[in-house]
Amino acid sequence: MPTKKKENAMREVAVAGVGMTKFGVSEMTNVEMFTDAGLEAIRNSNIEPGDIDALFFGNCLGDFEEGQIHMAPFAHSALGLPMSAPATRFEGACATATVAIRHAALLVAAGVYDVVLAGGTERTTIMETPMATRTFAMGCHAQYESPTGLTFPGVFGMAAHMYSHKYDIPLDELKRHMAEVSVKNHFHGSMNPKAHFPKKITVEKVLSGPMIADPLQLLDCCPFSDGSAAVVIASADKVKSMTDKPVFIVGTGQASAGPLFLQQDLTVVKTRMTSIKRAYQEASIGPDDIDVCELHDCFTIAEILAIEALGFYEFGKGYAAATEGETKLGGCGVTINPSGGLKSKGHPIGATGAAQVVEIVEQLRGEAGERQVEGAKIGIVDTLGGDFGTICNIILRR
Amino acid sequence: MPTKKKENAMREVAVAGVGMTKFGVSEMTNVEMFTDAGLEAIRNSNIEPGDIDALFFGNCLGDFEEGQIHMAPFAHSALGLPMSAPATRFEGACATATVAIRHAALLVAAGVYDVVLAGGTERTTIMETPMATRTFAMGCHAQYESPTGLTFPGVFGMAAHMYSHKYDIPLDELKRHMAEVSVKNHFHGSMNPKAHFPKKITVEKVLSGPMIADPLQLLDCCPFSDGSAAVVIASADKVKSMTDKPVFIVGTGQASAGPLFLQQDLTVVKTRMTSIKRAYQEASIGPDDIDVCELHDCFTIAEILAIEALGFYEFGKGYAAATEGETKLGGCGVTINPSGGLKSKGHPIGATGAAQVVEIVEQLRGEAGERQVEGAKIGIVDTLGGDFGTICNIILRR
Repeated sequence: MPTKKKENAMREVAVAGVGMTKFGVSEMTNVEMFTDAGLEAIRNSNIEPGDIDALFFGNCLGDFEEGQIHMAPFAHSALGLPMSAPATRFEGACATATVAIRHAALLVAAGVYDVVLAGGTERTTIMETPMATRTFAMGCHAQYESPTGLTFPGVFGMAAHMYSHKYDIPLDELKRHMAEVSVKNHFHGSMNPKAHFPKKITVEKVLSGPMIADPLQLLDCCPFSDGSAAVVIASADKVKSMTDKPVFIVGTGQASAGPLFLQQDLTVVKTRMTSIKRAYQEASIGPDDIDVCELHDCFTIAEILAIEALGFYEFGKGYAAATEGETKLGGCGVTINPSGGLKSKGHPIGATGAAQVVEIVEQLRGEAGERQVEGAKIGIVDTLGGDFGTICNIILRR
Repeated sequence: MPTKKKENAMREVAVAGVGMTKFGVSEMTNVEMFTDAGLEAIRNSNIEPGDIDALFFGNCLGDFEEGQIHMAPFAHSALGLPMSAPATRFEGACATATVAIRHAALLVAAGVYDVVLAGGTERTTIMETPMATRTFAMGCHAQYESPTGLTFPGVFGMAAHMYSHKYDIPLDELKRHMAEVSVKNHFHGSMNPKAHFPKKITVEKVLSGPMIADPLQLLDCCPFSDGSAAVVIASADKVKSMTDKPVFIVGTGQASAGPLFLQQDLTVVKTRMTSIKRAYQEASIGPDDIDVCELHDCFTIAEILAIEALGFYEFGKGYAAATEGETKLGGCGVTINPSGGLKSKGHPIGATGAAQVVEIVEQLRGEAGERQVEGAKIGIVDTLGGDFGTICNIILRR
């Protein structure tokens, strides 16, 4: 190790630049998409590929998608990074890219690297939806859960039933509130040119859709998408020469849990509470300080669970937030998923966390156009991997 | 981030304890094997699972082996780690576990964590050898290399031909020297109770084996194995109360490169030279200071390439080292692969790098029994991922 002093001294860390592809259906490979996103982030940081010290790369299922493991060094060479800038792959199911970015921030803070490119990529639509559903269900426990036929819509369908039962909210009423989450996120996404499904929808359309996993209907569920997103993370010292709009990473958290039978109450995601506690502590803030939030709305009920565990609402009190317009742009609460979220913007698994960071950075820079949260100063990213097995949070501040 | 001082101050880091399963054919799952190795490492460190701050977990192909991605949190819960100790999966093909351990060391050095469990697991024999060969060949470039039918024996077969041609060594002569590498490593492995194939072999047996990928014959190739290995990494401050035989991590390196057509000369592995340069610099030592080395002998020619790029021999001069007995226990050179190496000890892909660290730690503690390198003070680990796409090195000192 470089030196041997006793005291730990972490540096301030900022996002210098961001890049992402349009989410949707792509003919490009994972590496090609990531190269587009990565070069955009590098340009946006006013540097060259040769200035990058390391690549922290997220991908979830490149082997099933393209017969490719060990994708990180190939992305590295497509980007023209130096051989001395190591490329490392992270995987944490849907939280893959957030975990990669968190570790990049930690190692820049530690002074191991000065400038790191971090993000992720996924090419899900190369598989038909049933195959993609089965394949990504490998994020459930293969020994205890998969043999029951459980896939992720099933996990979150159970969570919705538990929520309805625990808080004594009739399922039909809860379904209507869940539909409002979808309507809100599609409204946000309709203003996002990079969204997979940038179209407004109605509650009626959600409630008349095909049933996927009771009570979740089609438009309660996010799509599988192709896409990549990347950010350049730099020390506060370095970032001065790169941009006049640095967005600082002021806190991160990450927590892990085992199979569902150990978690018991799916309405109270303890991994999220553990992760966010650390992130808030590091940032010396609380939920009241947050202006804008990108969170993991893989299913509509998941957004309701998240706004409670993140501390924006009490447990059992968050279900009507979208219905009341509180979490919508211009609402009285924290704006949730101004990008359109996973629901409308799309969900390229290994890229999702990076796209969340991209949105928060653009919001805090005041560059979000039509979907700008007025005066946003502090934002948070929340990403969930697997059936609550991984939660990763990143708090950003301008 | 925790605090905001300017200067980087890294702490000293040590391995406090090690654990590994016997390598070979197992009926256990990846998580079960890793739990055995991890608990052994925790016991060997005289701590409890609750003392662990994070899990850095390596696995390469759990999805093809067991239908399992997102394995890290499940290993985390099987080990009984706290929810606040995040579990993160790394993948770098055959260098997977070395990359995980390197990042664990960096984050303990940085003061982000005090005590981290790091290692890897793989269950390759659940697939028949042809399927395993095809599956792990996904570490080659899926777009440029795999369509040619290239698998790893082919990559290293080409490297052997290039070596023979470049240095004007007749192929038959080179093959005999390569066979001596296999004989040496099997001799070492015959003293390792955890080796997959702990039996002595002869040059004649190697040269009379079936041809795999010209000029590599069966016993030039390491086996596919099942197994897990793990180490506990702690700050120098913490390690004092854990063991009276700490082994310090004094330098690490990692480098990346793209497809073979960009690498051109397979006899000079530039990623290795880049990685080892950084590791030697951090440790303030050079190749002459190394007493013992565990390196990536996935094929016999790979050991010859490695001892040259690591600086133990000049390029083109390392091919006869095993034949001359220099790299054998008690030889006049650096002892190479006293564990038996990948060749005899076995190669459970995602666990291999961790098993290399385990061997070096036991050597530096003087606990290697029959295969002890007398007076060993400084050891090095070298792991290669994919077709030279990732190299990771770790230097340890007692």
